[in-house]
Formats: sequence, C-alpha cells, structure tokens
Amino acid sequence: MLNFRISGVIVLLLAGVLGAQTKPRARDLGVPFDGTPGPLNAITDVKGVEVGHTTLISGNGALKVGVGPVRTGVTAILPRGKSSKDGVFAGWFTLNGNGEMTGTTWLEESGFLDGPVMITNTHSVGVVRDAVIAWKVKRGEPDAEDYWWSLPVVAETWDGELNDVNGFHVKPEHVFQALDSAHGGPVEEGNVGGGTGMICHEFKGGIGTASRLLSVKDGGYTVGVLVQCNYGQRDQLRIAGVPVGAEIAQNSFRHDDVGSIIVVVATDAPLLPMQLKRLAKRVPLGLGRTGSYSGNGSGDIFIAFSTANPGAIDGKGVHQIAMLPNQQLNPLFLATVQATEEAVVNALVAAETMTGINNHTMIALPHDQLHEVLKKYNRLTK
Amino acid sequence: MLNFRISGVIVLLLAGVLGAQTKPRARDLGVPFDGTPGPLNAITDVKGVEVGHTTLISGNGALKVGVGPVRTGVTAILPRGKSSKDGVFAGWFTLNGNGEMTGTTWLEESGFLDGPVMITNTHSVGVVRDAVIAWKVKRGEPDAEDYWWSLPVVAETWDGELNDVNGFHVKPEHVFQALDSAHGGPVEEGNVGGGTGMICHEFKGGIGTASRLLSVKDGGYTVGVLVQCNYGQRDQLRIAGVPVGAEIAQNSFRHDDVGSIIVVVATDAPLLPMQLKRLAKRVPLGLGRTGSYSGNGSGDIFIAFSTANPGAIDGKGVHQIAMLPNQQLNPLFLATVQATEEAVVNALVAAETMTGINNHTMIALPHDQLHEVLKKYNRLTK
Amino acid sequence: MLNFRISGVIVLLLAGVLGAQTKPRARDLGVPFDGTPGPLNAITDVKGVEVGHTTLISGNGALKVGVGPVRTGVTAILPRGKSSKDGVFAGWFTLNGNGEMTGTTWLEESGFLDGPVMITNTHSVGVVRDAVIAWKVKRGEPDAEDYWWSLPVVAETWDGELNDVNGFHVKPEHVFQALDSAHGGPVEEGNVGGGTGMICHEFKGGIGTASRLLSVKDGGYTVGVLVQCNYGQRDQLRIAGVPVGAEIAQNSFRHDDVGSIIVVVATDAPLLPMQLKRLAKRVPLGLGRTGSYSGNGSGDIFIAFSTANPGAIDGKGVHQIAMLPNQQLNPLFLATVQATEEAVVNALVAAETMTGINNHTMIALPHDQLHEVLKKYNRLTK
Amino acid sequence: MLNFRISGVIVLLLAGVLGAQTKPRARDLGVPFDGTPGPLNAITDVKGVEVGHTTLISGNGALKVGVGPVRTGVTAILPRGKSSKDGVFAGWFTLNGNGEMTGTTWLEESGFLDGPVMITNTHSVGVVRDAVIAWKVKRGEPDAEDYWWSLPVVAETWDGELNDVNGFHVKPEHVFQALDSAHGGPVEEGNVGGGTGMICHEFKGGIGTASRLLSVKDGGYTVGVLVQCNYGQRDQLRIAGVPVGAEIAQNSFRHDDVGSIIVVVATDAPLLPMQLKRLAKRVPLGLGRTGSYSGNGSGDIFIAFSTANPGAIDGKGVHQIAMLPNQQLNPLFLATVQATEEAVVNALVAAETMTGINNHTMIALPHDQLHEVLKKYNRLTK
Repeated sequence: MLNFRISGVIVLLLAGVLGAQTKPRARDLGVPFDGTPGPLNAITDVKGVEVGHTTLISGNGALKVGVGPVRTGVTAILPRGKSSKDGVFAGWFTLNGNGEMTGTTWLEESGFLDGPVMITNTHSVGVVRDAVIAWKVKRGEPDAEDYWWSLPVVAETWDGELNDVNGFHVKPEHVFQALDSAHGGPVEEGNVGGGTGMICHEFKGGIGTASRLLSVKDGGYTVGVLVQCNYGQRDQLRIAGVPVGAEIAQNSFRHDDVGSIIVVVATDAPLLPMQLKRLAKRVPLGLGRTGSYSGNGSGDIFIAFSTANPGAIDGKGVHQIAMLPNQQLNPLFLATVQATEEAVVNALVAAETMTGINNHTMIALPHDQLHEVLKKYNRLTK
Repeated sequence: MLNFRISGVIVLLLAGVLGAQTKPRARDLGVPFDGTPGPLNAITDVKGVEVGHTTLISGNGALKVGVGPVRTGVTAILPRGKSSKDGVFAGWFTLNGNGEMTGTTWLEESGFLDGPVMITNTHSVGVVRDAVIAWKVKRGEPDAEDYWWSLPVVAETWDGELNDVNGFHVKPEHVFQALDSAHGGPVEEGNVGGGTGMICHEFKGGIGTASRLLSVKDGGYTVGVLVQCNYGQRDQLRIAGVPVGAEIAQNSFRHDDVGSIIVVVATDAPLLPMQLKRLAKRVPLGLGRTGSYSGNGSGDIFIAFSTANPGAIDGKGVHQIAMLPNQQLNPLFLATVQATEEAVVNALVAAETMTGINNHTMIALPHDQLHEVLKKYNRLTK
Repeated sequence: MLNFRISGVIVLLLAGVLGAQTKPRARDLGVPFDGTPGPLNAITDVKGVEVGHTTLISGNGALKVGVGPVRTGVTAILPRGKSSKDGVFAGWFTLNGNGEMTGTTWLEESGFLDGPVMITNTHSVGVVRDAVIAWKVKRGEPDAEDYWWSLPVVAETWDGELNDVNGFHVKPEHVFQALDSAHGGPVEEGNVGGGTGMICHEFKGGIGTASRLLSVKDGGYTVGVLVQCNYGQRDQLRIAGVPVGAEIAQNSFRHDDVGSIIVVVATDAPLLPMQLKRLAKRVPLGLGRTGSYSGNGSGDIFIAFSTANPGAIDGKGVHQIAMLPNQQLNPLFLATVQATEEAVVNALVAAETMTGINNHTMIALPHDQLHEVLKKYNRLTK
Repeated sequence: MLNFRISGVIVLLLAGVLGAQTKPRARDLGVPFDGTPGPLNAITDVKGVEVGHTTLISGNGALKVGVGPVRTGVTAILPRGKSSKDGVFAGWFTLNGNGEMTGTTWLEESGFLDGPVMITNTHSVGVVRDAVIAWKVKRGEPDAEDYWWSLPVVAETWDGELNDVNGFHVKPEHVFQALDSAHGGPVEEGNVGGGTGMICHEFKGGIGTASRLLSVKDGGYTVGVLVQCNYGQRDQLRIAGVPVGAEIAQNSFRHDDVGSIIVVVATDAPLLPMQLKRLAKRVPLGLGRTGSYSGNGSGDIFIAFSTANPGAIDGKGVHQIAMLPNQQLNPLFLATVQATEEAVVNALVAAETMTGINNHTMIALPHDQLHEVLKKYNRLTK
C-alpha cells in the first residue's frame, strides 16, 4: 500500500558503525569538557537506545523544486531499540517554538513516549509521521482492526539553505530504512540523517552526540544527548567558554540567530515524566554556554526519556514504578548541561564542508583554527 | 511532483451550500439554547471565515486495509478566506491530549496562526500537513527560494470504527480540494469532511457548528464555533440539561468516553493571543454541559482565533493593535460556552446513520425520541 | 514570637462534628446526582484527610476598615491528617487565574504537596502563608537550624461583599486553630472557615463537599471534593441540568460572573502528579454543569492530591511507587466531575442567609423554591 | 491598623543614591562583556523604573529564633515608579520552581503586572504580600469599599544560612519603606534589600543589575535586569567563559547547586505579554553562561515587564496597543542574555564578606584573584 518509486535520488544508508571512530571528535582536538563521558560518549551509552540515519544527497547546481539538489534525510532514535514495542516515560520542553515536534500533546498528557523519536527537515514532518504509523502497522502494532491509534513524535529543523526543501524528497521508505537500520554502538555524526543539510553558528552543522556517566555515589546512571543542530550566529559561538565565533569570523553571512536545534536526552535513571521534563529544561543551560540566544526564528525543542521502568505503559493492574527522589537529580541535571554542550561541539567538529542548492557552500568549523583559538585563551587540554 | 492517482475512491465534494439549509438543526427540533445566534448560526458568521470539506466514502463490507471501506475526509477552516495570505492572532488549549494538533508549538510561541486549520482522521495528519505546505508553495507562499517555512495546523479524531484508517486514503489532492472549495455561508454538518466517519456519545457524530452574536452594548462581536465531534459515552449525554443519553439507551456499545473532539472558535473581537487562549479554555464548560468527562482516550484540543488586527503578523515597523480589555471578555466567554454546546448538538442532529467497515453501523440520534425526551422533562421550545 | 492579642472578634471554632448531620444536604432535598457517594459524601471519605475551620463573625452595620463587620475565616485541608509530616503527590490546574494559590510553582515542579491546603479570603493569603511556616517551625518541621524551607499552599476567594476584607482580621492564631482542630468525619458546610463570607450564583455560598466511591471493578477508590465557592451569575445556575437560576430570579444583583471558586480534589487512588493534574482538569466539566462560564474576575483554581504512596517525598534511595495506568483513569475522571457538581450544590444548600458590611444581605438558596423548580422539570428524586 | 513595634532591629534604609557609584563594578575590574550598556548599566535605565531597598542587619553570634542575628530585607521594583497606579504588560517563566513568586497566576492569565515586584526571604513572602495590599489601601487603591482586590507579586530566595529566617523579622513597615524609598538612578548592589543575606556560587551574593541599550537600527530600546542571586556551586562558576570557580576553590563548602535566583527584566520596547514571557525564557541562557545547572533546590523564577503601552490595563473602550513584531525581537533576546550574565557578576563583585548566624561567614569574591584568573585565560579588558 505504501509503495513509492524513487528516482534520481541516491539513498545513502550509513550504518554508522563504519567510519564513526575514524573521525576526530571535539575531545580529540583538545577541547576541554567537564564531567565523565560514557564509553562511546554517545546517546547509545544508555543501554537499549538505537539510532538510525537515512541520508539523502543527490544533484548539484541550481535549485529546481522537486528535482534537487537534495541534501536532507531522516534520523530515528528508538529508546528501547527497534525490536521493542514497549514505551518509555518522557517529558519535553520548548525554549523557542519556531518548530515542530508532533506527538507532544499526548506525551505531555500521558507521560509516555510510545515509539521512536524521528528528526527530519521542516517540510517532511508529515510524511515521516504517517510513515511511522505505516511501519507500526506493518509490524502488527497497532493491530489494524483494533482500537489503537498512533501519535508519532517527529521533529525537524529547516535545511532550505542547502536542500530543495520544497521538493519533498523524503519518502516513506526512507523512514522505514532509518528505523530498520537503527543500531547501538557508535553514532555517526555530522552530515547524516536529519542533520544532513543543517548549519550551526554559520558553520556546517548536523548530528552530534555525547554522554555522561555518573559516579557510583550518584547512582551510576548514564545521560546521553543527541542533537540535530541548525541554530546560531557566528559571533556568538563559544566553545569551552572561549569566544571562538568572534575569533573565526570568515564566511559569516548572518545577522540573526535563525535555524533551530532539536535535542534528545536519554537516561537509564528511573525518572518520572515530570522529572524528565526537568532534564529537558536543563538543555538551555548547555546551549547558553555554546552561545545560543534562541532567536525568534529558532525551533529549540527538547525531549527527554528514561529507559527504566519497562512495561509501565501497559494498561493492566497497578504498576510498581521505580522513582529517583527529586533530591538526587542534581548530578543528572549537570550531566544534561554538560552533554548538551559537548554534543553541539561534536556536531560542529564532525560536520564537513558541503555545497548545496545554487552552489551555496557551508564551510566546516576549521579544526586547526579552533585549536589556535583555544590555545590563545589557554584552554587546550592537549 | 505531487501527483497521485486516485482509484477506487469516490471523492464527494460537498460544496456545503446545497442542501445545508434543508436539514433540520437542533433549534428546529425544539431544543432550547441560551443566547442569540448569528444569521447562519455557524462559524462563518464571523466575517471572512471560510470552510471547505472533502468527503471520502467508498466501499462496503469487510475491512481490507488499503482498499476500504473508506469513510473519512478533510475539513479546512480558513480564518480570512482562501484568498488571503494574512495570519491571525490565535491561542489553543488542551483538555485531554490524546490527540494531535500540529503547529501549536509555534502558535503558542508566536501568538499567530499562519494558514488554515485542518481537521482529518488520526492517521492522515501527516499527509494533510505536508500538503498544506505544498498548497502554499503552489501559491508562491512561502517563496520556494526564500527563507520561509511552514508549520501547518492539522488536528484529528479517530474514525477507525467505520473507516479503513490504516489504509491512508486521504491524499494531497483531497487537501487541495478542501482548501480550494472553502467558502462562506452555510456550513455543511454531520457526515462531511474530517467528520465523515466520526461517532459522538455512541450516536453518529461529525461536523457541527453554531454562533453567538453579542449585543451592541457588549460590542456587537460574533463568536463562531465548529466542532469535529467523536467523543462521549451514551449514558452521559445531556442536551439542554436533560439526560437524553440515559433515556435513549438502545445500541449503546461502549463503557468509556473514548474518541475525541476538536473545537475551532472564531471571533471578530479584537483579542490578543493570551485572550484567545482564554476563549479556548471555556470550551470545556460547554462540553461539561453536553456530558463529557474527557476520557483518557480522548483528544480534546481547542483552537481560537480572531479575525481582527489584519496585518499584525507582518514583520516591519511597530504595529498598532486593537485590544479589547480583559474586563470586557465575559460576554465572549459565555458565547463560547453556549456556541460549543449548540455545535455539538447540531453535529448530532445533522449526522445520519452510517455503515462502515465490517458492516459496523452507527445510528443517528433519533429526532423523534429526542423530542419525546425533551418533552418529558418540560424542555421543548416548540 | 507569634503572639497576637485578639479583641473585638468572636472566634467561632466549629468542630464540624456537631450539627453537621442535622442540616439537609442536596440529596435530602431530592436533587438527583449520578454516581455513588462515599459514606460521608465528603472529602473526608478519603482516608486520612482532615478538615478544620476557623470562622470569624463579629460586628454589624456600617463598614469601618480594620474594625468590621467581620465575616471571614480560614479552612485547612490536611491530606494525611495533622499528625503526619509526610507529603503527597499533587497536581493543580487553573481555569481562570484571577486568584491566588501560593506554593504551586514548587508543587508543579516537584509533584509534591508538602503540608496543608489552606483557603481564606483574598487579602489574608499572606498572613496565612507565613503562619503555616510558623506552625511547622513550632512542630520542629522544618528544623529551625536546618536547611529546610517551606512554600505553603494557600488559596483564596474574595469576601469583600460581606466582610471588612481590607481590615486584615485573620491572624496567625486563627490559622493555628484551623490546623489544630482539623478532623476526619463529617465536614461542616456553608458559612464556615474560608467560606464564611462567600457568595455563589448570587446566593449565599461557602464551603461544600461531596465524594464518589468507585466500584470494586474500577478499583474501589474514593474521590473527595471540597469547594470554597464564591462564583457565578444567578441566571446561569443549573442544578441537575435544570435552569434553577433563571427560575429563581429574586434578589439577583449582578450582571457578571465575578467571584471565584477553589476546588480541592482528594483521592486514595495511586496516581502520579501528572495524573492528579488531569483530575484537576476535570473540575471545569463539573462547573460547566452548574453554570459557570468562568468570568474574567474569577479565580478558578483547583488542586488534586493522592494519599497513596506514603513516604514518596523522602530523599533517600530509589522509591517503589504505585501507579494506576492511564487506561484506568476514566472512573476517577467521571467521579471528579460528579463530586464537583454535587459539592457546589451542597455548598448552596448548606449556606444560610447572612448580613454583612453596610447591612448587605445575601439570601440563601430557598430550599422550597428549589424543590418546586426541580418538580416543574420532572427531576425530583423524592 | 497595621502598627508594629520594631525593637532590637536596626533598620538600614539605604537610599541607593549615596555610595552606589563608589564601589567598583565588574567592568571596572576588567571583566569583558558583550553589548552596550545603558548610562547606569542598571534596570533603572528603563525610564520610569524605580528600585527601593530595606536592609535589616542586627545582632551577632548564636542563632536565637525570633531574636537574630538578622541579615535580611526587602527589595521593591516599581515598573512605572511609586507615584503611578498604572499597570504594565508582563510575563514570567520558571526554570526550576523550588521557590515562590505570588501573583503569577493572575499575571499569566491577564498579561498584566498591577503593582510592584517585591523580593524578600522565603519565610517573609506572606507578610510582604499582605503589606503591599495595605500600602495600596492606604493610597486609596483599591478603594476600601469598592470591588477591587489585589494579588501582589512577591518573590523570594532563602537566606537561612546567614539570617534568622524563622524569626520572621520582616514587618509591614519595612515593606512600606522599601516602596516609599524607591527611586530611579543608580541601584545599590550586593548586601542590600532582599539580597542582604544571600549567597551565590558559594561567595557572598545579593542584588545585582545591568542593562543593554539597543542600536537605533534595532529600535533604540533598553533592557534592564535586576537579580537577587543566591544560587550556584563554586566549581561551576564561569565569568566571561573563564572557569573562575574552579580556579578560586577556597572556602568552598557545598556539593550542590542549592539556593535560588530571582530575575526581573524590564524594557521599554512595546511587547505583548507573550513576548515578555519569551524575554523571561532567555534568562536561563545567561545563567548557563555563569555556570548554573539549576539544582533541584533552586527557585529560579523570572519576570519580565514592559513600560510601553501606558493605560492598557484600563477596562474601558478598545485599546490601541503598540506591538513590536516577533521578527524584531532578536536584539532584545540577546540583550536579556547579556544583561543577565552581567547582573550576576555585578552582584558577586558588589557583595561584601558577611558574618551571620552562628558566626557563619560568607566571603566575597576576591577582586584580585578574579583579576588574576581572567589574566591567566587572556580575558582581561584592562
């Protein structure tokens, strides 16, 4: 029933496992960060979380709406992995709402995220949303004759600077691919998935991730963050507190903080929905450190979920839910701030210079210049 | 690029003008209501508002996912009519969030509704959303090479009791038709548009509308309401305070308030976004009167907009905005409660018995029995 | 340190146990209500809940600010009784915010209510708030040298129609008395406690309560509601769906829905804070039935708490919390709507005609006329 | 009627004009900040805004509850000055709600702040609130026999580390003094008013202020910020992006971000309430820069108001309101972030070492060491 013919679009299925380790990350360049990351320094350090990307890159030169050039994609984050049909407790928060995250009305009401978090471009939210339902239907979930319905969570940032965004190039099968290829382990960063055509602080942006591992005294929990970053003004960019954006001024082209950032926070700490919303509310404290002022054109929307408490979404009986007291949340709050800051910098470090529609080119953050600026301000770790 | 072949689906384009007056409405049956309606007793009494429906009805018998039977559609409400590209101040409110209304994050942040309000079935929200963007692109709005983006407002209720909801039968061209056929004047009610396959208090439901005209002393403003009603338990139904549902118990089949209701409130009073949110918050007071307790499975989501203050969405200069003081809102609040109550009853009165998937039949509210019950409780106006 | 001399004010400590059963309640007058009440048909049907009133009535004739006449008081609702220092999960909701409920910022953030809910008049919220802290300090809670702080929950409605509200007649010792005299069992209704000088639908209003007991199949839980009702326009009053206010028009003196209503919802069902907020959001559906349109001048603020999960507020370890699935909330939603409706009518039935400042007299709802009107509309149960 | 005898408490009425310029501020020490401050670099750069402090310091040595030592006070911010009875459009936002700001339910509903913003200690919120009403009553506002009521805005942070907070030393006359002594011009910072006994990043904290003046191109508007800062963990403190807290580790005594911060944002830009809420939501981006992670114990509550649109609160007629389009808000957002960051640092720089209850001593941020650390990281402006 959902059969589409794809032509003229090269579908790149980046498994993420290959090559992910070969690129340097922010820490490798000597950028100092506080806190202790998990083994992968990625959202997938939270056990069970899987991430899949479909990256669509094709065509060059002048924009022809519906034809290309195409620089876009879809990213899927599955809280318990693609083989689970169980939901998770979740909360969300909007810093500036010039964006979309579908499914949040029910998430707010119910306290649950029942399915994946999808991220794509602004004009493909609809196709991704309905395709998530089709994917669930194919899996017999919801049962096609049962009372069930689905309200998928799909977020976006706008890639019309590089991508033929009005060409609607994301198709249902790209959504299925992102979902079906989701995996644990290292997460591909930069120009991949929903982040393919994104821009951050007027450098090439995209997908970034980081994590923090709490001490045993603080519960030993993990907080993982994944961002699709597309926000920011060059002269505001701060890395490790250093005014990097003001120091690297070339190719600056904006006078505003347009664009957006979607942030996904995962944890294995046993938090209630209201506590997860509190995690999501710490994201701005991390973005403040990297230089966001959350411009009017920005869709800065954050979601947090916990993989603890499996089965809590079930409707039968009375559940026994594990709950970390509010008094113990501080290490998780700090971890969220720190991992958000690092995930943004990781996205900037991983993204590569890209040329898109009408030969617009977005340069990547130059690693050597970043090194020089950090050195100037005595902030290099190596 | 957005070319779809429609086969096996009969598209019914109900212009709404024809026949709308021939069916009796709740007042015609002697149901008492408070307040003074506008000339049409419809949301289109608010000058400029246009409504269009695409109704999809095809097939009979056993459900075959992707084939049918089809009992669904799309309704478009255009605050300033389809020829305007201007936005309106707007606010929204969720009573119970087991539903979707896309675009509300930006609406909440900006205070503006920039485009139509669309209503469809739960699993077609995505296709309708992206199609609204495509419709805007076709009209050169946003300009395909400009920085603009769209975050359309699309709401839903679930029609899987009568419709092949997992068959994804709503296509972009149905969305274009609803938008392009929108008109002022009488509004078709009952089994039309997004309301085609809906159920309300275990009777056949769908689209209903009503309005209130304020006295000159109170400003002479109009409040119009349109509902897509799909909520409610039979034994809870009250009409004009009378326990109609308990008195007409036949064919009751539920034990829960499942389903949902989307309510659109329009006014020409010069209200700020926060004041429009206050209007939306009065909708539950009307639904309380008809017997809602807003069950867990219900998506009870309400949006209110004002057609005053044209041009306020423009980004240039400093605007001079008309604002009705808070102290003068009471007549508008009461009008919203009253028009909501009447719109729900109008939907019940207009809807006709329908047979859908697997030969499920939903009976219409029997007009003669309604008359009898109102008489028993001394509440008939004629 | 908190020693006050009271002179010229007669403090009436109404224990509530005496006489509470002697007055007829709404059901005794033949008013029909849906659902099954608990044994007391009161908020105290929820085990552990205690209610205490301090009623201040003194003076007659012309208003002399600071002297009187005094028609005011304080009501204390203690979720686990006055001997417990444990908190409860809680949520709140505002229908119209022309009022105050202190402590709700932390309640919203933490999910906990840590102390009593107090209700008084608008201009005494401050003294009551600080006195609750003083009462806790006296009990060694928080410890006077420890890090603890208190953010008490105090709500209000405005009694300046009958009471010298700018005379600040409520003193800390009145607060201590309300707290220390709190008790289970029958709850005094009408002109008592915070409700002493209140007006409802232009009849004498005040405190009312009701409860619902769920069937064993639905979990056997109890929902109790207590209202301090001071809202409403005469011609809008509906009782059991019957337009009682329009039928009993004498002594009507308003053209607006001014005033306010505070509603406290208690349950023993194991609900999370977000679920308790959902209960609080059902209150408007009950108020819609009695004829509220929540005027601009109304402070319609509602709080809900659960006595389940003792010890959850403690900061140590990881808690095991009982949680009723969302799918089982419907009977609790309906019970909240029904008990709210009945509590308002109980307040109207219990309140007695009162003369206050400047010889203003507010008549009570005449029981005989209520009976006649219900009979006219065939709605009497006896 | 509100007559209190004050004994054993030395009331320091700091007019703010004297001496305010004699102390160095952060810029004087060579701390770099972005953006252009107004002439006073204070909230009073917004024309009409007046600030008054009552500072209560008395006693030494061991805590005796009700006696002292006393280290507390009250700060009053009057949006249009003490001689005006007009309201202002306002919005608010809570980052972490472990605190109180009364009056916000009506502020959120109405969009107006009708009176001053008061800041005091946690356990004096009530007395300050009722005293604001008494102050209004004394001024004939509201008229003592009229229908008016008041819902004052009073916020707090907790000073129990240095102050006898359970002694309730703030009295109504202190509130009157803060209000009556409010003035334009330079604003006293540090250990004054509500900020007297506060702690920030484990240094002595208190009141701080800063402002930004927008370019003519951006509208020439002013944004002023005043903070009562009492939050933060030492090792998290960043000034101008430099890890100052980690470098100045002596006398660190906490392991948590306890405490709170109240932030008041004023502007003369013609913003609607929803736009002012957006300003308040930018405060966390500034706090993120100074090292907040908004701990569980923190009451981080922010209010923003606009002095434009005088008379908008009036209930008569239809108002013509000036509104700056959303598209022009970015410079105001950035100014809010920048002024918040600087106001916190100004509070730290102005505060002086204080010894309070039980001889607890909080050291001030050592200016010389701050200078050294900034130099080490190449961030000194002079």
